[in-house]
Parts: sequence; structure tokens; C-alpha cells
Amino acid sequence: MFQSFDTTSSPEHGPARLAALRAEMAVEALDGFIIPRADAHQGEYVAPHDERLQWLTGFTGSAGFCCALMDSAGVFIDGRYRTQVKSQVDLAHYTPVPWPEHSLADWLKEKLPSGGVVGFDPWLITQGQLETYETALVQSGITLRPAPNLVDRIWKDQPAPPMTPAFEYPIEYAGKSSCDKLADLAADLKEKGEDAAIITLPDSLCWLLNIRGNDVAKTPLVHGFAILQAGGRIQLFVADEKVAHLAPDPLIDRAEPCDFLPALTKLSGKIRCDKVSVPVAVIEALNAGIAEISYGPEPCALPKARKNPVEIAGTRTAHITDASAMCELLCWLDAQPTGSISEIDVATQLEQRRRATNALQDISFDTISGAGPNGAIMHYRVTHETSRTLQDGDLLVLDSGGQYLNGTTDITRTIAIAAVGKEERTAFTRVLQGMIAISRMRWPKGLAGRDIEAVGRVPLWLAGQDFDHGIGHGVGHFLGVHEGPQRLSRVSDVPLEPGMILSNEPGYYREGAFGIRIENLVVVQTAPALPSADAQREMYDFETLTYVPIDRRLIVKELLTQAETDWLNSYHKACLAKLDGLLSDAARTWLAQATQPL
Amino acid sequence: MFQSFDTTSSPEHGPARLAALRAEMAVEALDGFIIPRADAHQGEYVAPHDERLQWLTGFTGSAGFCCALMDSAGVFIDGRYRTQVKSQVDLAHYTPVPWPEHSLADWLKEKLPSGGVVGFDPWLITQGQLETYETALVQSGITLRPAPNLVDRIWKDQPAPPMTPAFEYPIEYAGKSSCDKLADLAADLKEKGEDAAIITLPDSLCWLLNIRGNDVAKTPLVHGFAILQAGGRIQLFVADEKVAHLAPDPLIDRAEPCDFLPALTKLSGKIRCDKVSVPVAVIEALNAGIAEISYGPEPCALPKARKNPVEIAGTRTAHITDASAMCELLCWLDAQPTGSISEIDVATQLEQRRRATNALQDISFDTISGAGPNGAIMHYRVTHETSRTLQDGDLLVLDSGGQYLNGTTDITRTIAIAAVGKEERTAFTRVLQGMIAISRMRWPKGLAGRDIEAVGRVPLWLAGQDFDHGIGHGVGHFLGVHEGPQRLSRVSDVPLEPGMILSNEPGYYREGAFGIRIENLVVVQTAPALPSADAQREMYDFETLTYVPIDRRLIVKELLTQAETDWLNSYHKACLAKLDGLLSDAARTWLAQATQPL
Repeated sequence: MFQSFDTTSSPEHGPARLAALRAEMAVEALDGFIIPRADAHQGEYVAPHDERLQWLTGFTGSAGFCCALMDSAGVFIDGRYRTQVKSQVDLAHYTPVPWPEHSLADWLKEKLPSGGVVGFDPWLITQGQLETYETALVQSGITLRPAPNLVDRIWKDQPAPPMTPAFEYPIEYAGKSSCDKLADLAADLKEKGEDAAIITLPDSLCWLLNIRGNDVAKTPLVHGFAILQAGGRIQLFVADEKVAHLAPDPLIDRAEPCDFLPALTKLSGKIRCDKVSVPVAVIEALNAGIAEISYGPEPCALPKARKNPVEIAGTRTAHITDASAMCELLCWLDAQPTGSISEIDVATQLEQRRRATNALQDISFDTISGAGPNGAIMHYRVTHETSRTLQDGDLLVLDSGGQYLNGTTDITRTIAIAAVGKEERTAFTRVLQGMIAISRMRWPKGLAGRDIEAVGRVPLWLAGQDFDHGIGHGVGHFLGVHEGPQRLSRVSDVPLEPGMILSNEPGYYREGAFGIRIENLVVVQTAPALPSADAQREMYDFETLTYVPIDRRLIVKELLTQAETDWLNSYHKACLAKLDGLLSDAARTWLAQATQPL
Repeated sequence: MFQSFDTTSSPEHGPARLAALRAEMAVEALDGFIIPRADAHQGEYVAPHDERLQWLTGFTGSAGFCCALMDSAGVFIDGRYRTQVKSQVDLAHYTPVPWPEHSLADWLKEKLPSGGVVGFDPWLITQGQLETYETALVQSGITLRPAPNLVDRIWKDQPAPPMTPAFEYPIEYAGKSSCDKLADLAADLKEKGEDAAIITLPDSLCWLLNIRGNDVAKTPLVHGFAILQAGGRIQLFVADEKVAHLAPDPLIDRAEPCDFLPALTKLSGKIRCDKVSVPVAVIEALNAGIAEISYGPEPCALPKARKNPVEIAGTRTAHITDASAMCELLCWLDAQPTGSISEIDVATQLEQRRRATNALQDISFDTISGAGPNGAIMHYRVTHETSRTLQDGDLLVLDSGGQYLNGTTDITRTIAIAAVGKEERTAFTRVLQGMIAISRMRWPKGLAGRDIEAVGRVPLWLAGQDFDHGIGHGVGHFLGVHEGPQRLSRVSDVPLEPGMILSNEPGYYREGAFGIRIENLVVVQTAPALPSADAQREMYDFETLTYVPIDRRLIVKELLTQAETDWLNSYHKACLAKLDGLLSDAARTWLAQATQPL
């Protein structure tokens, strides 16, 4: 099993560890110390070595940070974790702070006098974050100071940094050689008059060098750093233990991670750094040398986001593999007597079916399996304590995905448990209408997520309803299930380009009652030509990647327009065709039923 | 007649006037001089006194500027005027420059050496414009220098500045006393720690003081300036000749416009200036004194945009008055034999019918009456040279509006001339679907035009079509027919608020063939409660203000969803009800026919 349903928080150690941390703060003459959840690579998943926030406070969420002062300690958590944090930290010693509503700078200004000094590990804070903090602290007299990591100093049994072997990611999956990618990036640097670019994001590194690894769970990453030269060579700073077995590449100069900072101080010329991802430690090292820093976009982000034809073809196949597992699960689920299975049973059975494909490398995130009121918790993670027995009338929100060598999947289906009420079905139908609107739309070249996202919300809006997340996030290729820079969101102004993979997942959540989410992955493509001669504009649209039936029992047919019904029937017909020959007898029968025309 | 169909350009004077201007440039040691189309108040319409651009170059467009150098002169014009400019300026002496694609700064860098000095009248350039130019000219060695207006110096028979009497705008139209408005704005200044605010926009002045005038055509403006004190008093700089007859107001200290700059230099404390509207001359005067400039939003813009209930009620009535004139015109038009009338005939007949309401103060802009290929020119202004005889199969785009004491209207209808082809009707139906989508929608509080505008484009996008203007602009109340800050546009991030009036006018244009635009005015309101208990969000929607039938002959009914057909039938029913008793017998018969259910 990849997924565990245990609750791993240990709030009882929090007070003693906080006291030890404060003793170290005193030694360093610091009035405060910041403990981010992030590691030096700013990813969604961190290795046990980097679980400092959890070790110190007990809080296990996937985002947030702590700021310890001498007489208080704030745990900054976003809306998802307001309830969870209360049971995971010792509230006598740690104070949850609603974030980002309450900023770190404002909190520090309330707690510290002018002259206060707050330390931070310059590997764990990005230059962009530091500038945001410092701008907000101007005139407060409070300063931030880079310092040794004081948590590492007191964490006696801290696990070692991850040291998993990297493996080559073959060209038949990657679609483009590392050599060609390097040449393209180098040409871009030259064109912009830059001499080198800094890479600290492991998914960029993995994409660029066509390697993968296992340094964190759920995402096949290799931790490391790199300096990409405009001449086309790359200095790679990854532990030799991880890469020694790989064939040498004449364009790659390998070194240990501890050589990274000294190499930075030796650079000259104009060096591209992405403020959003590069740690302060990198900027300090560059500033200590003679190089000129040129802030700009992360060099791999956009090229990596525009998937090539081989990656797209692989992803299509991965989605069909994944869909077969989903259909087996849904077939099994429909056959269970009401009251006999729990949320955990569903997640476990689903993982078994994904593993049975013999293609699964890992799940791409912990499955969200939430029934009834648990479905209304957007980022619900089921544990033994919370697991609900599925009951007559429940909606089950099942959000899951897999890592396959040829692609990363992410799918949500909302499933009727026996007879579901009219109100739930009406809301489900509206969410579906939004999801279909995004699936069907085409739009002129040049637009960004924020320019088109409303189209997927109108059916809910017309009913006075909405939901508090974007419609979609970017998705990587056998890499992160969340990947930028593209998003289908009101806050994203990155133009959508062919090859970008996104989720299309509108939802609806009634707190304490039920939740709904329907999610397909889609890829941006040049829209196929229309027969009419008056279709003059160059348009993009989405090719759908996910082919798993949508629960017809939850659709109020009268609410759909003919175009929406046509889309759904045609989608279900495609599910049937694409999964032909891949299912058990039982699942084949189930699928035929589930894809009947409306 | 308010509208003239003459072409008033006199390109033949251009060369001599340019030579005279250059002689003055030499006297002032200037290498260039900028001649904007704008006056000191940055409005859409300028008085004859301020028609410097037209006087110098011959160009009559409503936007643009000239920059004269010693050996060349660029006339910067946007996409609307690329063709027109060529027939209006002497191309041997003036060079059209496509703008904003080609910026003034880039053009200057191509034409002038380092050390070049370009003069400008500091009354006619805003501080924001100047900063944009100067930022773009950094490191070029080219400087901009405030100078006397050299065009005024050589324009011997320049008309005097407008000197029309202002008149009081009664509370039964304005809905809120000037005294109350002043108190609200003063409170806002106090809250922000500002001591005064500068007002140079005449529509702000008119709104704030509940006055109107006739200083320019089409918009009932009084030109002047004001200093609004945080204490609640206002210094008003308007020629005494214009306001002497008005009852004195204890809160208003009147002075002549020539007293404005001296008064600015005497100010102290923190003075709010809006970069986008305040002339450089104002900033210079403030900098010469001891005041501290605080850049911020124009103080009247948002309060003016949020129409009060009396203004909204008046606007509803004005639209019904205007609709009666439109229906009389459409009835007349349908009765004319094909081939018997021209675009000018339609504009003239429409103006007569608006005047026949006995309520019309002015038209709110020159009527756009464009048939066949002329309809594809978005900002077409019909002249005797271009006026087309309406022909069988033409679409006529008729975009017009009126200034009434109780409100400003703006309406576009596209009308079938005899039998229109399928392609035109299909495109018309898609434009209508977009217009209905905006009319029907509701959205959560807090969103801006850019967050929802796409919803009105989707029907065209699905057909591979689009149009190159926003869906809507703000509209004033017996003030400018174009008014900010709200817009229904991809570039507008001003949250929509109840009381804001906007146009809803999607279109479609096939160059050289036909154009389509359908426009209603709408006002943002808190959306009426829905019967369902699950409509939990606070939502806004649009109340429609315009009630004139949409040409049913152009609708391809099969393309409409039931909800769209229902909306249209209900809209037409409302047209019939609201115009009951206001029409001639012929128009009543016409309306009954035009509003038959689809």
C-alpha cells in the first residue's frame, strides 16, 4: 500500500522541542525563528528529513509554517487546515494563525518591538518570499536574518536526506532528448543576453535531464541543483550515490550538492534566477561573487508545461490504463450492499486495482475518499478516525490519481450511494454543466485561465451557488500532479498554449452535508477546423484525456441543454470504445450500463 | 439637427501651419512639439477652441496626437482611423504612425539624437502620460519639456474657450444633494489622512455640484477645476460668466480658472491627485508649493459610477422615452421600399423622432448608421461621401443614444433589410446568444468585468468567431455616454457594484461584408433572491434598462436553447408592456408584430 490512513501527529513533543529551539535562538541572539513546511526545492511533498514543521509542532498539513518567538509560537495555516491544526498541536504552546489573511509581517509587528530580529534558514525561504516579508516590515524596525537551521541542530534523530537512486527516463516516454532540451534552453539564455540560469526545482531538473527518482513520495523526483550555462553545458549538483550508476553525459558536469554554493560564487556574467523558486542562500552566494543577477522566469517551467506529442500520446495511454482501474473499482462499488463498506475500503480497493494494472509506479497523491459531510471538505484525507461507512443517500467524492511511466493522472468522480436526494442531484447536474462547458469550449489564441474560467461556473452562479477553488491546475508528465505555470483560475494570467495539461474540476460543497466534484484532465490543442468558412480566428480547445463514465444516476436530465446531453452521450460512447478489451467481464457489463445514452 | 454628415477636414492648410509651428519651435529651442487631441479635461469631446490637432493636421478623429519635429511630423492614430487619416492629412508633410503599436517614445528614439528636447503644453498631458513617456525615454538622452502652447500662438483665429451658462441639475434628477456628496467625499479624504483632492474632470465636477452645461457637444459638461477640502468646502475655478447666475452655495468658493494654479501653490498638507486625469501643470504647481502629493483614485469616479436609486429610476424612464423614438424609427424603416433610403436618412429620421419626444437635450454621440460593408467598420461615422443606400440583403447596424435630463441612453440594433442570408442570420443569432448570456447571468459579489466577460463570447467562440472590442463600457447619468471606471472587458479589474450602468454589446464584423452589434444598457443590482434554499452566495446581476425589440427576422431559432428563447420572449413581452400608450398607431401595430413570441 502506498497510502496510509494513520494519523501521524505527535503534539505531545511540541512543548519540549519548542523550549529547546528557544534555547538555540537565545544562543544566536534571535528573537524569533521561522520554520517553513517547504524544503530547499519548494515542492508539494517533502522527505522525512525535511518534515521540520511536523516534528516541531505536530502539524501534518501540506502547507504552512511556524514562527517561534520567545513567548509565543504561531502556526500559520490556510483555510483547509483550520480544524485539523487544532487537534494536531498543543494549543497551550502553539497558536494557529489564519493565513494568508493574517500575514507573517503583521503578526510580527504585533508581537515584536522595533529592533526585533527573526532568523530563518536561507535554504528554505525563497528570494521572492523574503522580499515580500521585508517590504511589509519596512519602517517596523524588525529585521529578518539568515541563520543556521536551529531545528536541525536540536533534532537529534533527524532522518538523513533522501538518497534514492535516480533512473534514466527513456526517450520513448520523454519524447525529446536531454541534449535537445539543453540546446533550446541555452539558445533562450543567449537570446536574452544571459550567461547562465539557476535551477533548484527538482521537477525542472528531472524534465531537463530525462531522469526520475524517488526522493519524495507520490512524485518521482531527484533532489538536486543545477547551473545551466548559455554555452549548453550544465553543472549538476546531485549526490554521487544517486547518479553514479547513470551513463555519463558529455554535457553534464557532476558535483556534490555541497559544491553548489562555492560554484555560484565563482560565476560571472548575467545569471537568471527565478525569484519564486530560488532560495535566499543562492542569491547570497551570487551576491558574494561577481555575477550580476537577472530575475526572470524559471527556465524549464514553460517548455516543461508544453508537452510534446510523445508525452501527450503517453498520457493518453496512461489515462486509459487508469480508467480501466477506475471502472473496475466503480463496478465493485456498485455491487456492495449499502452500509457494508467505508471510505477507507474504497481508497484501498482503488489502489489495489491501480496496482493490478502492473503499470502503477505510485499513486500521484493520497486518495480523497469522502462520503456525506466528509465530501464537503475540499482536501479531505481519510483516516481510521474519520472513515465513514457509506450510507444510503450519500454522495461519495473520490479524487485520486496514479503515476505511470507514460504519464500522471488525476480524476474525480462523485458517486451515488443508493438513492440520492433531488437537491444533491440538481447541484451535481449544475457542476456537470460547468465541466461540460469547459470541455466543449474553444477560445482565441492568447487567452489565459482567468479569461475563460467563469464559463465553467455560470451554471452554478445562475442557481446562486459557487465554489472556493479554481477550476483547474496544471499537471506534469510522470512528474508533479500539480505543476505550473498554467492554471484554470481567476488569478492566472499565463496564456494557455498547446500541450499544456490541466484539470477541469468544478465542484460544489455544502458544509456538513455533501460535496460534489467532477474532474477530467484535458490538454490544450489547436482547435480542429470547423466546416464553416466564417470561422476565421485561430482558436484553441481542450482534448479530453480522462475516459471514465459520469454517474448518470445523479443527472437531472431536464436541466441539460441538447448540446450538453449530446456531449455526455458522445463522451460515454468514447469511454466504451476506448476501454474495449481492457476490463473484466463484470466491469464490461457495468460499463455498458453506465454509458447508456441519456 | 445635432448631427452633421459633412467632412470637415482641411488638409490643405497643414503644411503652412506646420511651417509656422516649426518657426516657433526654433524660437523656443525645441526639437519637437506634441499636439494632443485632448484638452485639459481629458474628455471624449473637445470644444472648437481645443481642436488643435484638427486645425494643424486636418485629422478629425476622436483620439490621437501629433508630434512635430523639424524634419518630420507623426500623426499617431489607433486602428479605427488607419484609413481615414490618409484622406485627412497632407501625406507629403504628415506621416501616420500606427499607435499604440508604435509608441511615441520609440518613434522619438528613431528620429531624434540624444540631447533632443521635445516640448509639450503641460495642461494637455497628464502626469501619468508624462511618466510613461519619461520611463520609456530613460537612457535615450531625449527629454520632454513643458512649454507654452505653440499652436495657440500661431492660431490667429482660434475660437474662444467655451463660455456656455451652467445650469442647476435638480435634486429630483440627481437624487442626492451636492452638500451630501461633498460631505461623503470629505469624510473619505479625512479617513485617508488627505487634506484636499484635485478635480480636473468636468463630469466629476458636474456630478459633485449637481450642475450641467454645454461647453462641449453631446455631453452636458461645464469646464472647470476644483480643489476639494477635507473640511468639506470646495474651491471652484469656473469662469464667472458661466456660473454667476447660479444661487451661491455656502460650501463653494468661486474663482476664475486663472486663479487655479496660484491656489495650488498655496496648498499645504497631503493633496490627492489622480495620475490618469491630472495635467502636468497641476503637479508642477503643487511641487512649486509646500504640499505633499498623494497619488490615488479620482475622488468622484467610483461614487459617481454607483448610481443612486433616483438616478436609476430616472434612467429607466429615459430609456423608455428613448425606446419609443427607436420603435417609431424601426416602424418607419420597415415600411420603406428597398433601395429608397440611405444611411443618412436613417440617422436623420431617428434624430427627428428622438427630438419629437420633447425630452431630448442632445444626442449622446453621432449615430453610427452603417449598412452592408459599412456595418463592419466598428466606429463608422456616416458622411455624404460614404452614405450607402440600404439594399436588399443588407444588415444595418444602428448605434445611437440620447441625452435626457433623467438619463443618458445608448442602444444598438442590427436590422434586416429585406431578405438576409443564412450566414448573417447565423452570426446574428450567436451575437444574440452572447448578449442574452450576459443579460441572464448572476455572479458572486466582488468580481470585475474581466472575470465574467468571456461568458458573452462563448457562442461566437464555439463557431470560431470573435470580435475586437470589449462587451461593455460604463455609462453616465445625463453625463458621458462613456464613463469609467467599470467596464465589461478583459482588461478591467474594477469590481462591479450595484448601481453601475454598463453597456452589453457583443458584436461580429466581417470586413468588407457586414457587421452585427446588439446593445442594451444594464445596471448592476443585488440579484433577487432565488426560491431555492441552497442559493447561499450573495450575488449580483444585471437589470436591463433598454426595451426595444430585437429583430426576430434575423434569429435562427433552432440555434437557441429553451432558456434563451424564454429570455427573448419575456424581453419582448416586457417591451410591449413598457411602451404601452407611448406609440403612434402605426408603431403600436409594428411593435405587436415585432414582439410576437418565437
